Amino acid sequence: MTTGGERGGSPSFDDAFCARLAQLFAWRRDVRRFKPDKVPAALIEDLLRTAAHAPSVGNSQPWRFVSVETLAAREAIIANFNACNAAALKSYEGERAALYAHLKLSGLREAPVHLAIFCDHATEAGAGLGRKTMPEMLDYSVVAAVHTFWLAARAQGLGAGWVSIIDPGQVSNTLEVPLAWKLIAYLCVGFPQEEHLDPELERHDWQAHIVENEKLHRK
Amino acid sequence: MTTGGERGGSPSFDDAFCARLAQLFAWRRDVRRFKPDKVPAALIEDLLRTAAHAPSVGNSQPWRFVSVETLAAREAIIANFNACNAAALKSYEGERAALYAHLKLSGLREAPVHLAIFCDHATEAGAGLGRKTMPEMLDYSVVAAVHTFWLAARAQGLGAGWVSIIDPGQVSNTLEVPLAWKLIAYLCVGFPQEEHLDPELERHDWQAHIVENEKLHRK
Repeated sequence: MTTGGERGGSPSFDDAFCARLAQLFAWRRDVRRFKPDKVPAALIEDLLRTAAHAPSVGNSQPWRFVSVETLAAREAIIANFNACNAAALKSYEGERAALYAHLKLSGLREAPVHLAIFCDHATEAGAGLGRKTMPEMLDYSVVAAVHTFWLAARAQGLGAGWVSIIDPGQVSNTLEVPLAWKLIAYLCVGFPQEEHLDPELERHDWQAHIVENEKLHRK
Repeated sequence: MTTGGERGGSPSFDDAFCARLAQLFAWRRDVRRFKPDKVPAALIEDLLRTAAHAPSVGNSQPWRFVSVETLAAREAIIANFNACNAAALKSYEGERAALYAHLKLSGLREAPVHLAIFCDHATEAGAGLGRKTMPEMLDYSVVAAVHTFWLAARAQGLGAGWVSIIDPGQVSNTLEVPLAWKLIAYLCVGFPQEEHLDPELERHDWQAHIVENEKLHRK
């Protein structure tokens, strides 16, 4: 996935590409059911180079990518999720609790690839530009990298699921990353068992689509 | 930009699409120099519907889009930026200060479209799913929407620039949005005067690309 031979002139994107891009946005789903098929390491590394094309505040490039591979680390992450998920379940009552209990909220056990993506708060890159009044921009830059990875992965036939029912500090401890690295996303990645146009949480009656939220307010 | 007629079967994306997508990621740049040409309102509204395909925690869809159109509001935003930019300049010394002073850090005056994108912290959508241990996921969902908008806009020939040298609370006051709305991004949008493959901050010697940051750590 390089930019090819158009360095001299900027590309334009035709209607056919835009239509396919719209499909990519629509079919990029949070995937929680994975095939056991291995994912080539070179493909993941290629996708992370693509992710590094994300916008970053002051060009700070604060993303740090960790592949979680050892059995011990994976078991610790799964235990972390299970504890947080049990606590979350207790916060719901009645029908909501029953519904929550039936949702599949991660594919940690099945996913062939686990990626923990951090933001390095100690980076000096970017020299603080754009971060003085909105310091959260550093984290947002990493979110953009996560999203870039996700879209590029889906285009290659891979699915990703973002697991946020997890104690981020414990993840950092498990993975022994530098203290200044903040967990932004824990991703399960692999080839999906099934694909859908609608979000799993819509299909399973947790939360419907809200057309109202797409509207443009004017001031 | 609808998903067309493939609702029955999931799309696959061929090598040609993936190559163009890589170009889109590479040529999506923070734009600060805009042509005066108007942008059709319908195009912006269409792009915001596309942005609403972004992933959101618990399917909470917490994005709120505000088009900033009145002269009074725009002047207040520009004054806000000017004050923050002057304060930022004072924080640098010597060559860095000289370099900072010469950077063009926003296109607020020229951009035909200003979009303020907020996260609604009061939303009940999603019923808190996925937010208990990582409450920041609500903001991250809006970042993903901003990034989706940005990519889709670039594919349509539009440029966007994310202005974070701004006091976010003052923006909220100026736009009189609900107290629970947190500013995530202030975007300048329009047709770009020039297009580049490299980030402006690389080209102008503020911050080079760091290949090291793309590497995959293993645990």
